[in-house]
Amino acid sequence: MTDANAPLDAVLSHVDANIDQSLERLFTLLRIASISTDPAYAGECHKAAEWLTNELQGLDFDSAVRPTPGHPMVVGHQRSIAGPNVLFYGHYDVQPVDPIELWTSEPFEPKIGEENGRKVILARGASDDKGQLMTFIEACRAYKAVRGSLPVGVTVLLEGEEESGSPSLDGFLKENADELKADIALVCDTDMWDEETPSIITMLRGLMADNVEIQAASRDLHSGMYGNAARNPNQVLAEIIASLRNPDGSVAVEGFYDDVPELPAEVAEQWKRLPFDEKGYLGAVGLSEPAGEKDRSVLEQITSRPTCEINGMWGGYTGDGFKTVIPAKAGAKISFRLVGNQDPHKIRKAFRAHVEARVPADCTVTFHEHGASPASVVPSDGAMLQKALGALTDEWGREAAIAGSGGSIPIVGDFKRKLGMDSLLIGYAQTDDRIHSPNEKYNLESYHKGIRSWVRVLDALSK
Amino acid sequence: MTDANAPLDAVLSHVDANIDQSLERLFTLLRIASISTDPAYAGECHKAAEWLTNELQGLDFDSAVRPTPGHPMVVGHQRSIAGPNVLFYGHYDVQPVDPIELWTSEPFEPKIGEENGRKVILARGASDDKGQLMTFIEACRAYKAVRGSLPVGVTVLLEGEEESGSPSLDGFLKENADELKADIALVCDTDMWDEETPSIITMLRGLMADNVEIQAASRDLHSGMYGNAARNPNQVLAEIIASLRNPDGSVAVEGFYDDVPELPAEVAEQWKRLPFDEKGYLGAVGLSEPAGEKDRSVLEQITSRPTCEINGMWGGYTGDGFKTVIPAKAGAKISFRLVGNQDPHKIRKAFRAHVEARVPADCTVTFHEHGASPASVVPSDGAMLQKALGALTDEWGREAAIAGSGGSIPIVGDFKRKLGMDSLLIGYAQTDDRIHSPNEKYNLESYHKGIRSWVRVLDALSK
Repeated sequence: MTDANAPLDAVLSHVDANIDQSLERLFTLLRIASISTDPAYAGECHKAAEWLTNELQGLDFDSAVRPTPGHPMVVGHQRSIAGPNVLFYGHYDVQPVDPIELWTSEPFEPKIGEENGRKVILARGASDDKGQLMTFIEACRAYKAVRGSLPVGVTVLLEGEEESGSPSLDGFLKENADELKADIALVCDTDMWDEETPSIITMLRGLMADNVEIQAASRDLHSGMYGNAARNPNQVLAEIIASLRNPDGSVAVEGFYDDVPELPAEVAEQWKRLPFDEKGYLGAVGLSEPAGEKDRSVLEQITSRPTCEINGMWGGYTGDGFKTVIPAKAGAKISFRLVGNQDPHKIRKAFRAHVEARVPADCTVTFHEHGASPASVVPSDGAMLQKALGALTDEWGREAAIAGSGGSIPIVGDFKRKLGMDSLLIGYAQTDDRIHSPNEKYNLESYHKGIRSWVRVLDALSK
Repeated sequence: MTDANAPLDAVLSHVDANIDQSLERLFTLLRIASISTDPAYAGECHKAAEWLTNELQGLDFDSAVRPTPGHPMVVGHQRSIAGPNVLFYGHYDVQPVDPIELWTSEPFEPKIGEENGRKVILARGASDDKGQLMTFIEACRAYKAVRGSLPVGVTVLLEGEEESGSPSLDGFLKENADELKADIALVCDTDMWDEETPSIITMLRGLMADNVEIQAASRDLHSGMYGNAARNPNQVLAEIIASLRNPDGSVAVEGFYDDVPELPAEVAEQWKRLPFDEKGYLGAVGLSEPAGEKDRSVLEQITSRPTCEINGMWGGYTGDGFKTVIPAKAGAKISFRLVGNQDPHKIRKAFRAHVEARVPADCTVTFHEHGASPASVVPSDGAMLQKALGALTDEWGREAAIAGSGGSIPIVGDFKRKLGMDSLLIGYAQTDDRIHSPNEKYNLESYHKGIRSWVRVLDALSK
């Protein structure tokens, strides 16, 4: 018996009363080894898509397994003519489990463990992203069970190739743009601020990446015969790389900071209020001193400020022992994390001009590009964002944070550019969930309160 | 019928009259595939040692194949009680022939070809070092045939592991120091100044090599999560490498030039007189502008001046595509060519101090040493050197050059330190002999006039 006018508390109580069944359904999904990068698991990916489609159909979604050139998508609709309508995005594929010997339990046999006094769900995909996407489906289930309907129109889009570069996504979004378009996208693939504090990510850094190769002599030389007189491309490349950073930690490419905005005042103030353990963040990886711009906090350095990183460099002999070679070539892979309105193409041009100005006589430089995406920014004063923040604050009893993410989540840019939609990135994962690594976990509290959070967020968005 | 008082010209005429037989003996030696690095050719190495021992015995040397833990040595004596006595050094082992498909004839089937109007001997080892060592043996043969004796006491030492790092040499020299010691060593493994101009190398650069590794974080990081705030060891290493050279091309390590002498005045003057094609030397490898100290000629930069070269560097992701990693470690192989009185241990200390002073907070540096040998210098005003220079000038009709070699020849340092002997490095190879490469050659003129040169040098040393 459903009651269309049941209060929000009744829906939340239903979540609490049925958490064991919600968990059992997640376990069923976690038992499917839907590793997308390994063709041997294609059948498992399909099985996960079928299972999710059935679940959505059981909740009255108009749902289907949708073929792509790769693993299928799952799409389900339960639209509202009155609106608003949301598009929920998640992914059902998972990372491989190597190195398997470091797992303390079977990656596809989920179980409950305990860590630091908290119960955790242990399995590949527990956090990334099966646990997260199931929080949303279970929230929908509670509404259907209590009220018989959802408070807003919902389209669910579940991808099966997120962990292998989303090769089919672009085409699928283009072909089904009208069907997928909604007032806002809800993306559940991110972390909380910390274990106590929920957050919505409104800033995602963009990326511009280039491969740089310096050639000097026409062949490798012997340093006994040519050392000193022959230009050494290792030395040239090192000098170029060294020139990319100023002594104060800022990036030295001309005009690099032109389109970098300051934090919105309300965000800057919130970040001063919210706890962020700089020492712990760096200390966890053996570091103690931030290496970026001296006048910026670690939090700013890793989320709201752009960076230039040397992701790889090579030249000459790198094996065991020693070889006194002067190589003909040396190379580097260099990427820039972008923020605000930095234009990746303009930054690429400025970067290449910076390099070219430092290539000495007898050397040539070759560039190969590896992608360019601008930062994604959701205005921090938007009405839907504010509603969702309020709902999260209510659920967790802590002021929900407006946060930035240092990495890019390409789907957010795709939704913006292809479907004209902003995204709200709401997730309940923790930074210590060991995603992509052995012994991946998801806090049981993240799952339970994650379901409750979506109940509140959907309610808030409906008002 | 020999004549102990036959004039020098008679010995030289004998060389000319018997050059075809001399060449046939060289061909016999070249047909033995004495590749020392490949255990499959151990039998061939032994065969070469046997053959050479027989040749020496045929010339009345007290000669034997001398076992070592590796390939055998050949030692032969024909000492003079009155003196002087010389130790002749050469090596009978050769480099592998890969890539075999680039050879235009069989590497171990020697033949006469023609290049740029000159006859050349084509075979692996033709120049390095079988052709060269046979010039000396054939010079001895001419003396024995014409006069019945050698003009000076001679010990011959032929090594079979020069191309594989001479692992047995050190022990052999120590164990047989008294037997091998002579007034001077004659080493025949070097080039002429050019095809017309003979030379004696009196300066060999030394070498100090270090492996340097910079560690920052305790594990590889994702640049999205840590970019900016985490110290990137690629950046740190590049800045250290960049700091090793001053803008004027000199090496920036403190005190690096303290023990670097200026060229002896007579050598400096000779180098101004002698032809050296700077443009051609650099142009042959696609370069045009010397990269070392601005106020030094190319010849000085590559022979009489020290250098610092980055022989290898690596860090992060270097495969296809792109990975936005911040690696935990980056490394480089860095070597210094040393001259004059530069002490490799002092230079290593100064280099490491230079690096350590530039390692920022949170980073550690680890060094591994890869050898240290000082430069070898033969005083350019020594009596024996002057006699040998005169003999070469007489043979070639050109002023013999006092030259430097940019690379090190470890045997010279070993003779000095272990046997207390200076070396005269006299060879007839050309820089275009393609040693260690396919289609190795030795000019026929180098062989013929090389034999005649030794006849004259031994005569001059006896006076």
